[in-house]
Amino acid sequence: MFENKERTDISKLGEFGLIDHLTKNITLTNPSTIKGAGDDAAVLDFEGKKVLISTDLLLEGIHFDLAYTPLKHLGYKAIQVNLSDIYAMNGIATQVTVSLGLSSKFPLEAVEELYEGMLIACKKYNVDIAGGDTSSSKQGLVISVTSIGYADEQDICYRNTAEEGDLICVSGDLGGAYVGLQLLEREKNIFLENPQIQPDLEGKDYIVERQLKPEARRDIVLLLKSLGVKPTSMIDVSDGLSSEVIHICTQSEKGCNLYEEKIPLDPMTYETAREFNLDPTVCALSGGEDYELLFTIRQSDYDKIKNDPDISIIGNITEKAAGMNIISKSGIVHPLKAQGWNSFK
Amino acid sequence: MFENKERTDISKLGEFGLIDHLTKNITLTNPSTIKGAGDDAAVLDFEGKKVLISTDLLLEGIHFDLAYTPLKHLGYKAIQVNLSDIYAMNGIATQVTVSLGLSSKFPLEAVEELYEGMLIACKKYNVDIAGGDTSSSKQGLVISVTSIGYADEQDICYRNTAEEGDLICVSGDLGGAYVGLQLLEREKNIFLENPQIQPDLEGKDYIVERQLKPEARRDIVLLLKSLGVKPTSMIDVSDGLSSEVIHICTQSEKGCNLYEEKIPLDPMTYETAREFNLDPTVCALSGGEDYELLFTIRQSDYDKIKNDPDISIIGNITEKAAGMNIISKSGIVHPLKAQGWNSFK
Repeated sequence: MFENKERTDISKLGEFGLIDHLTKNITLTNPSTIKGAGDDAAVLDFEGKKVLISTDLLLEGIHFDLAYTPLKHLGYKAIQVNLSDIYAMNGIATQVTVSLGLSSKFPLEAVEELYEGMLIACKKYNVDIAGGDTSSSKQGLVISVTSIGYADEQDICYRNTAEEGDLICVSGDLGGAYVGLQLLEREKNIFLENPQIQPDLEGKDYIVERQLKPEARRDIVLLLKSLGVKPTSMIDVSDGLSSEVIHICTQSEKGCNLYEEKIPLDPMTYETAREFNLDPTVCALSGGEDYELLFTIRQSDYDKIKNDPDISIIGNITEKAAGMNIISKSGIVHPLKAQGWNSFK
Repeated sequence: MFENKERTDISKLGEFGLIDHLTKNITLTNPSTIKGAGDDAAVLDFEGKKVLISTDLLLEGIHFDLAYTPLKHLGYKAIQVNLSDIYAMNGIATQVTVSLGLSSKFPLEAVEELYEGMLIACKKYNVDIAGGDTSSSKQGLVISVTSIGYADEQDICYRNTAEEGDLICVSGDLGGAYVGLQLLEREKNIFLENPQIQPDLEGKDYIVERQLKPEARRDIVLLLKSLGVKPTSMIDVSDGLSSEVIHICTQSEKGCNLYEEKIPLDPMTYETAREFNLDPTVCALSGGEDYELLFTIRQSDYDKIKNDPDISIIGNITEKAAGMNIISKSGIVHPLKAQGWNSFK
């Protein structure tokens, strides 16, 4: 992967040397970061606000395939995936810690690329890398990111507080990350069979980017605040719409009606799913990795959001006894399932 | 490893099922834990105190060898290692997040054992498991722990604030974890050559435990507070005394004199090191994993700590130009080195 590039063996630097090398250009920009990397622990100050903490583990071969994932994108995504959890609490992310397990096949230049993607993501979202850990790994690349943020108590959105009659909303569009993955997998397999053939991803930028370089929806948190809307519950769409809706309903002890025709799909997602003989709705419901925000609002807030092109109202919360349902385009009611749900037409 | 025990395949539970299963018995005991596992992020409240965050990555084959590490001990150690960083800031740890990458060879019962060790450590140190992540791993066991704690601003001890004339102190004794590791490695190799021979660790409980089941020194943080001593700098001994002293001196821009005869060694560490033809002082200086606290105090605080059997004064901070030195038992001055330092007699 790095044959034509400079290769510096990490062991020349040692663990402390590597940490120094990676962190020397970090500029701390958040007033809450009192002390970043370089001591036993980071020191943060949230001045009486509530502190939010979330953590994700990304493992080579499970969460990413280095065959088609540029390291800079991977670093970017590793941060986004984690920040998304803070936004899903209606909070603002301010710091991350980054732990890396690096196999010896990784030269310093590869680690730099990965870290550069992380720094770009952090800069864009105004987040400080405040610490971490590095280690050699016998097993491939291991990335563990913990993100830290804050919120005023009255702003925090949990999963278990949706109320009957609330509207179910989702930001952006869904299914793109999953369809993008299918495309990348196909091109990888073609390449493995015949390395002379170059990947054909032309015109598919949007969905490839949805998979490789997702954007956490900090903007939605800020938008809702500016619209004066506090969601009654919120979660990010990491495992597929269906799974997330079920989380909110189960934890809130409620049911729901979800309307297939209301689920936002980008035309490219739709068309490419069809090329793969996939049901686009299934890609949205079960695909995952879209990192959009799914939230519920009071009906009285409907007027505030109804004209926003980036928010779709896709259903409503019902009493628990009514069950969790999805109503197909043809009007048929199906129970919502998290996994193995693959076609209801 | 689990041949004679019940085996439940983790895939039967799925990721959410596994998380529920592991976290269902968690009781949150810290007033700062507002919301633990079960949402996108944990919600914490430190009421204006400074927040401390530290993270460690533990990888199979690098940080632990499952051939001689019982999983319960490993879970216990994974927590201790991480809490130690919070204590090294002179803070009190209150929460951890735990991420696990589990290979398919791991049955549920193995994960339960690992997690039980973690819960025991957390209970003993009054720390809440407030969240985490689980994933399958293609590569062996991956453990990532992030610990969170707090301190009043004026109590926090950094690495870079040692002053000339300060006394260098260390808690407990050193080198035991390293010598314990040599013992375990030897018995592993004997076993691999002849599985009929049972490991001979008799009478070596203390040093084996120092390696497998270290205790982070929360008690020292509390002791120093009760004695009215605020260290001028502090760090935990994870990489060996020598490396930690160098961290403090380098970051504080100071030198030091360390006295070999003052370095605390347990008799069992001393004797066993000799059996392995190792210099016991080298084990203390370069061995690591003792998780004792190394700190500096003002000379005016000497009377407050001089009678404490659990604290040794091992040297003093000098001006930077004097260099970082260790004075041998025979009175010879040697420059202190972090790595490759192996005998100066």
